[in-house]
Amino acid sequence: MKIISKPLRSEWINLLKRPEIEQLSLETEVTAIMNAVKLEGDSALRRFAEQFDGVKVESLQVSLAEFQQAEDKIELPLKIAIHQARTNIERFHQAQREETRIIETTPGVRCWSRAVGIEKVGLYIPGGSAPLFSTILMLGIPATIAGCKEIVICTPPDAKGEVNHVILYVARILGIKKVFKVGGAQAIAAMAYGTESIPKVYKLFGPGNQYVTSAKKMVNREGLAIDMPAGPSELAIWADETCNPSFVAADLLSQAEHGSDSQVVLVSTNEKLIKKILAEVAHQVEILPRADLAKSALENSVAFCMNSNDDCIDLLNEYAPEHLIIACEDSDYWSTKVINAGSVFLGNYSCESAGDYASGTNHTLPTNGFAKAYSGVSLDSFVKKITFQRISADGILNLGFVIETMAEAEGLWAHKNAVTLRLNKIKNDN
Amino acid sequence: MKIISKPLRSEWINLLKRPEIEQLSLETEVTAIMNAVKLEGDSALRRFAEQFDGVKVESLQVSLAEFQQAEDKIELPLKIAIHQARTNIERFHQAQREETRIIETTPGVRCWSRAVGIEKVGLYIPGGSAPLFSTILMLGIPATIAGCKEIVICTPPDAKGEVNHVILYVARILGIKKVFKVGGAQAIAAMAYGTESIPKVYKLFGPGNQYVTSAKKMVNREGLAIDMPAGPSELAIWADETCNPSFVAADLLSQAEHGSDSQVVLVSTNEKLIKKILAEVAHQVEILPRADLAKSALENSVAFCMNSNDDCIDLLNEYAPEHLIIACEDSDYWSTKVINAGSVFLGNYSCESAGDYASGTNHTLPTNGFAKAYSGVSLDSFVKKITFQRISADGILNLGFVIETMAEAEGLWAHKNAVTLRLNKIKNDN
Repeated sequence: MKIISKPLRSEWINLLKRPEIEQLSLETEVTAIMNAVKLEGDSALRRFAEQFDGVKVESLQVSLAEFQQAEDKIELPLKIAIHQARTNIERFHQAQREETRIIETTPGVRCWSRAVGIEKVGLYIPGGSAPLFSTILMLGIPATIAGCKEIVICTPPDAKGEVNHVILYVARILGIKKVFKVGGAQAIAAMAYGTESIPKVYKLFGPGNQYVTSAKKMVNREGLAIDMPAGPSELAIWADETCNPSFVAADLLSQAEHGSDSQVVLVSTNEKLIKKILAEVAHQVEILPRADLAKSALENSVAFCMNSNDDCIDLLNEYAPEHLIIACEDSDYWSTKVINAGSVFLGNYSCESAGDYASGTNHTLPTNGFAKAYSGVSLDSFVKKITFQRISADGILNLGFVIETMAEAEGLWAHKNAVTLRLNKIKNDN
Repeated sequence: MKIISKPLRSEWINLLKRPEIEQLSLETEVTAIMNAVKLEGDSALRRFAEQFDGVKVESLQVSLAEFQQAEDKIELPLKIAIHQARTNIERFHQAQREETRIIETTPGVRCWSRAVGIEKVGLYIPGGSAPLFSTILMLGIPATIAGCKEIVICTPPDAKGEVNHVILYVARILGIKKVFKVGGAQAIAAMAYGTESIPKVYKLFGPGNQYVTSAKKMVNREGLAIDMPAGPSELAIWADETCNPSFVAADLLSQAEHGSDSQVVLVSTNEKLIKKILAEVAHQVEILPRADLAKSALENSVAFCMNSNDDCIDLLNEYAPEHLIIACEDSDYWSTKVINAGSVFLGNYSCESAGDYASGTNHTLPTNGFAKAYSGVSLDSFVKKITFQRISADGILNLGFVIETMAEAEGLWAHKNAVTLRLNKIKNDN
């Protein structure tokens, strides 16, 4: 992790550039997979399971018996932990519900909006070495609160043709019954187009490898909604003398262990502190099982020594990190100055892993600078807000002139006429 | 407009298919334009203005003098109308502001979210025959309420190199000073990449022709946020005996006059009523200045005679119209059954043109069935919701076990360690 000291403001944008992700040219391969699923449905999914996952899948859908067996395998402490995390995530996302309020914008003109759950949503949950059951909590909980009627999960089977038991356990407690043993681009195609077994959905969520990401991009281009554009995970930490260097180091590493493409950024006005933290990082990394991944992520990472606190916050807003930890004395004050970030952690005890699992906030967040325009996943991601209006005869009498005048100025006469007819009717009736 | 009587449920999806929009293969052309803007900046914009708009543009940015001259040209009734529409739209969108509420999900674990305006947004406003100044109200008002710091408008110049005066007047009263005389794909490129004159923005809004739409799609693919995918405008009306057939006909026509690709759908359980309405349509269309456009839109349009009210609402939810008028006796009741629609108009006096201009709801809405997953533009479209958390020592004592257990189960040891270090510190301190 190299240290950049007092960079000129004009250099910031270049210094903050994310490492270029090698765009494998997957399009041809992914398109072939997706077309096969579109044309052949389930049989293509079974063929790809053999080809890519090395397994013959009899029934694509997870059976009741499999759910039951999965539950039996989970030990009590993990059940308790998942239950507590679920409660917190539910509390935070329940609070995002909005009451419908009718606004009378002009006497007789009443307008309101109502949030309605997207009827059919698909969640992709990666399998492999780190089965991200926490992602089911983060996506499944707001989906159920939103009232999505059909929630579909696709996740790849392991070499035995089974789905990770914690994934099944979490799906079950959330009441998600439709879990399919399908991974990769073929899973995205199945949920986007529908097959004999797998329902077509209206919006797709969830992380994935380059094939999944490429497939999500493709169906998004065709008009299907997706959660957000994807990029490698990242963390920025702003620390001052009040921080605990060993905590900061541990947090940097918790981000770095995600993968070699993860990026961590450290910002401070104190170069001595930076060096102390980096020494702690070097010390702590050695005992990690995923030390290699973490070390390679750290190679892409930078510590910035800045002139002032104002420069720190400006630099961070320019970077727009997915996760931002502010381990500074005035973290409450500085939190009000954050403009671009996915999720912000304040003080010495708010570690990123709390938000990743259990504090209640969502962990599906905008990476790669997308925080400048995108929010993380929330209840909003699973609803559409439909607007309604009811205009009374008095209402159109009050508003009619406005509509007529504007429609005429835009040259849209039928728009005007729709009002004129109504005004005439009311006048004739009286 | 053909009548389809009592269609089988299994046929609905096919019957409701939108007419295929001829996808002109614009990609090559649009890519060339966009690359030129990326490389050459303002000089490319000037060249394209000559080439496409047939005009030499000296200063790309609209000057203060031009704003003043524009204002002088607006007559008082239009000023009053715009003022009233603005007030209503502001009232409705102001009410979408959310107060920050801190949720203590576990004792010592406080989480909240804060809506922050997207710093830089770009609004594309088409010029041409119908200068859509109403779209500036619909996009500019939520942008200013959201607190977007930089609001940029691009709109094509006319043959004299001028921007429509109502467009300038509306921009000015909203406090939007950066209006540029640039249209088409080159405008989208300018706002996406930035030029010497035009700032690069983080999110793009607004309707446009096929070049604009294609350019928006392209920059969206590159990661830039856009308001929503585009498609031709549409209206569905559900009418029963309590409707006024001449109002319904006028509303159908107000949608149809938008363009020959507009689609209108009429739904009723009463075939006699349908015929009466279509006769009214045939009568009213003749006097419209845009009768040709309207007639050609009506050719693509369908009236459905259904068996029951339940079938009507199910059909409409399957169609997912951009605009839906419910001119039925129990419109309040049926409004609660709407799942897929952009904006809904209830009763005989709620004409679509009210929502297009002045009632307060937004007129930028999901077309082409996108209402199944997308909302219309609202205050949400101009903010990111950043989540925050502050965990106290007590908080991490309460939550630590949960995080440690879940991180371990996902095999992410550094995530666990970030908590363990904190728990140990607290224990050692006590």
